[in-house]
Amino acid sequence: MNTSYSLWPVPDIFWKSLFDADSIAVIGANNIFGSWGFDALKSARASTETDSRKEVYAVNPNAPEIQGLPSYKTVLDISGPVELAIIVVPAAIVPSILRQCVQKGVRAAVIISAGFAETGEAGIRLETELVKIAKEGGLRFVGPNCLGHADAHTRVASAGVVSRIKPGPLALLSQSGTLGASISHLAADAGIGLSKFVGTGNEANLHFEDYLEFLSRDKDTRIITAYIEGLREGRRFFRLSREITLQKPIVAMKVGSTGESSRAAKSHTGALAGSDAVYAAAFKQAGIIRVEDEEELCDVAVALLNQPLPRGNRVGILTMGGGFGVVTAEACEKEGLKIASLEPATLAKMDAILPPRWSHGNPVDLVGIKMMGEDATTSSCLSLLMADNNVDAVISLLPPVAALPPGANGNLELERLQAISSAYRKGMDFLKLQVKLNNKPLLLIRRFFNRPPGGTDVSPEQGRIIPEYRNHRRAARVLAHLAWYSRYLDYRRNE
Amino acid sequence: MNTSYSLWPVPDIFWKSLFDADSIAVIGANNIFGSWGFDALKSARASTETDSRKEVYAVNPNAPEIQGLPSYKTVLDISGPVELAIIVVPAAIVPSILRQCVQKGVRAAVIISAGFAETGEAGIRLETELVKIAKEGGLRFVGPNCLGHADAHTRVASAGVVSRIKPGPLALLSQSGTLGASISHLAADAGIGLSKFVGTGNEANLHFEDYLEFLSRDKDTRIITAYIEGLREGRRFFRLSREITLQKPIVAMKVGSTGESSRAAKSHTGALAGSDAVYAAAFKQAGIIRVEDEEELCDVAVALLNQPLPRGNRVGILTMGGGFGVVTAEACEKEGLKIASLEPATLAKMDAILPPRWSHGNPVDLVGIKMMGEDATTSSCLSLLMADNNVDAVISLLPPVAALPPGANGNLELERLQAISSAYRKGMDFLKLQVKLNNKPLLLIRRFFNRPPGGTDVSPEQGRIIPEYRNHRRAARVLAHLAWYSRYLDYRRNE
Repeated sequence: MNTSYSLWPVPDIFWKSLFDADSIAVIGANNIFGSWGFDALKSARASTETDSRKEVYAVNPNAPEIQGLPSYKTVLDISGPVELAIIVVPAAIVPSILRQCVQKGVRAAVIISAGFAETGEAGIRLETELVKIAKEGGLRFVGPNCLGHADAHTRVASAGVVSRIKPGPLALLSQSGTLGASISHLAADAGIGLSKFVGTGNEANLHFEDYLEFLSRDKDTRIITAYIEGLREGRRFFRLSREITLQKPIVAMKVGSTGESSRAAKSHTGALAGSDAVYAAAFKQAGIIRVEDEEELCDVAVALLNQPLPRGNRVGILTMGGGFGVVTAEACEKEGLKIASLEPATLAKMDAILPPRWSHGNPVDLVGIKMMGEDATTSSCLSLLMADNNVDAVISLLPPVAALPPGANGNLELERLQAISSAYRKGMDFLKLQVKLNNKPLLLIRRFFNRPPGGTDVSPEQGRIIPEYRNHRRAARVLAHLAWYSRYLDYRRNE
Repeated sequence: MNTSYSLWPVPDIFWKSLFDADSIAVIGANNIFGSWGFDALKSARASTETDSRKEVYAVNPNAPEIQGLPSYKTVLDISGPVELAIIVVPAAIVPSILRQCVQKGVRAAVIISAGFAETGEAGIRLETELVKIAKEGGLRFVGPNCLGHADAHTRVASAGVVSRIKPGPLALLSQSGTLGASISHLAADAGIGLSKFVGTGNEANLHFEDYLEFLSRDKDTRIITAYIEGLREGRRFFRLSREITLQKPIVAMKVGSTGESSRAAKSHTGALAGSDAVYAAAFKQAGIIRVEDEEELCDVAVALLNQPLPRGNRVGILTMGGGFGVVTAEACEKEGLKIASLEPATLAKMDAILPPRWSHGNPVDLVGIKMMGEDATTSSCLSLLMADNNVDAVISLLPPVAALPPGANGNLELERLQAISSAYRKGMDFLKLQVKLNNKPLLLIRRFFNRPPGGTDVSPEQGRIIPEYRNHRRAARVLAHLAWYSRYLDYRRNE
């Protein structure tokens, strides 16, 4: 397994060419909206808006002009240097195109074209030829059969659907283009921008492990996320991950655990899914947080990027209604968390400020009667819960802002929306301060009645945010992941 | 267990008074925005907009006028008849208020006030007193300690947060007010309106089973959904449900399966959660679809209301990218579904119309290359998959409409949005026709690139809709529920 070409060290200059090339040729660029060649050129050109010294060339022998750019017959017809080639031509002619790239002195290529190892014997032969050409020519390549790549900071990109995402701390490696696009868009919806994205495709030349190694030292990347169907260098992956997770969290989806999904993975990118039990054990030992789907991946990423890790697994729950307390306690216990027994001092203080009907324990149920217009009470209860020494983390089902009276006509007119929005921001500021004061994570569950108008303030640039989850099960699961990762780090650091 | 007062038959006239009262008194109504008394009166008054002959009275000895209505000192001071009383006063005075209601000849009451059996010994005594007063006075009541109720057709309601939901076929019984509100709002977001809602509270007088029996013959209700913490008449519930599920599906959340959640449920509404294993077995034998959270409840309800049941558990998957196929196949298999082996004739026809690189099997992966602007191909593949005799249900990850070229400036201007919206509706019409033609369920997974502008067309009034789910796991789980229910019905009908 460890004899593959990809174990040849990847020079730093390659990564510079891939993610920050000064000159890019898109070979197979075209004018057909929605085609890969169209998208690749459009994506690549975004980098010239960020840095006007960058050059992007269109290569296509069949059109004189592409998207307003002059078109070159071959990459060899370009007079200036070409650092990065993005290749979007039929599989059969990719080898000859790659030879031209070598001849031109291209250092890095992204081969988007499909029709290689994933299709059977003939495709495997074609792919082997690509590897040989690259090896002999001193070129390294991403793919083939991939969505492309993107650096959200430099805007150098070949993957259309990912290229327009804003810069941020999350790196994403995906063995599926569609899943990669899906994850990056969900993350964007949650306010998290991207550092680097790679749709790794068939990994004929560069393996998943090469990208992982690079990301471990990439300064733009604070968290590494991944969609994995199968790994080509399992042992190297394990060794690398075990080092990386001590510095940066890795959150990964690993699929192919069932018969048909494993078969589908093979025909997708030629990956062998392997034994799920082996993967599960290896992930645990390497400190990788394994998630079930894209939403969970983003849920965990938001928390990891914005919250401290809990020191244990004892949860305090603040709720405005008994039902929410019941379902949240159940979800926490099902995820292996404990419902904290509050300190007597906390209970006594709550007794002093709450009406006699409150739940007198955890979950702290404020029983709804006074749920509206009672900021002082709910804020005080939250502070008490966060400060309790028996509590490692808090889940709150209370909105950070109480409802405001409606205007004269009972509708939500603009002025009222602005007032709520402002109160919401103030409420969030208070919660952020509580997190900082107590150095404990605080997760919110956002339900219909605490949706802020105009979306939540989840921009990481604006400082630590309080994650809001759509339901109790998702919040409990995130907290269980954080508690597990925290315990893992403790264990490893005390080894 | 079967000796409780609630087993006294509930007269039909009671249900008329509860859900379609001609005269309603809100006792404890007030002018404090956000309070229960404020909301109850506001809710109840909505019924007079639907039917101007209805009368709503405010009762509160401490204010001359409430929300613009004259306020009565007691219910006895109202000159006209009062059919329904909504009671929102401190627990200690509820017995005397209820006695006045009996004296006035009120037939039905909703006791929203909390502070009864859920709080301990003194509360239990108070609650027993209420039951005695009602029994002797020939009055039946909902609650105490509940959110209230609502009929979305007549607009007779006491529950503020639920009262503004549009009419529809879904009945909801909830042992938690907050969960009830949460579920009804999620359902509304999914385009499903309510028939009846009851927050059942402590169920001192009317039990969950009484409501269930009524809903079984309620013509406005096509599907019964429930949030359950504990049942007071387990055997009656089981017997009733077993009859009902042959005609109307029951979809229920049952919580309290863990130690702390069970304890929390007791302090919430005094319910005993009972053994989860016993509930699980009883639900299965009664044909009740058990769901884990509110989102799953709504996911299943949307499908049941709009799709035929599958005849078996063999799924066809249509995807535009390998990754989506892999994760969807995995999710289906994990839920006990089978990935269908397509008929040779289907494969041959697909070979004839697809580029050679397609997956040549199920999941049917159109490999992305031609995913855009190729309506004819994707529509044809979908038809072939739906018509395959080895396929019982289809999950499609393809949008019902291909992307359209951007306008001159590359942005989504209004005209383009309208064009997409119109194409989306046409695409949906085609899918609906496929469902009708083949009498098989079709579920869509909606990802970032197939979000229609301005939301989906999910109004049940406009005919059968195609459910769209946010991720593959949710769609697979829904399909597993439908396949299970279909098999259950076959078994019961052949008994």
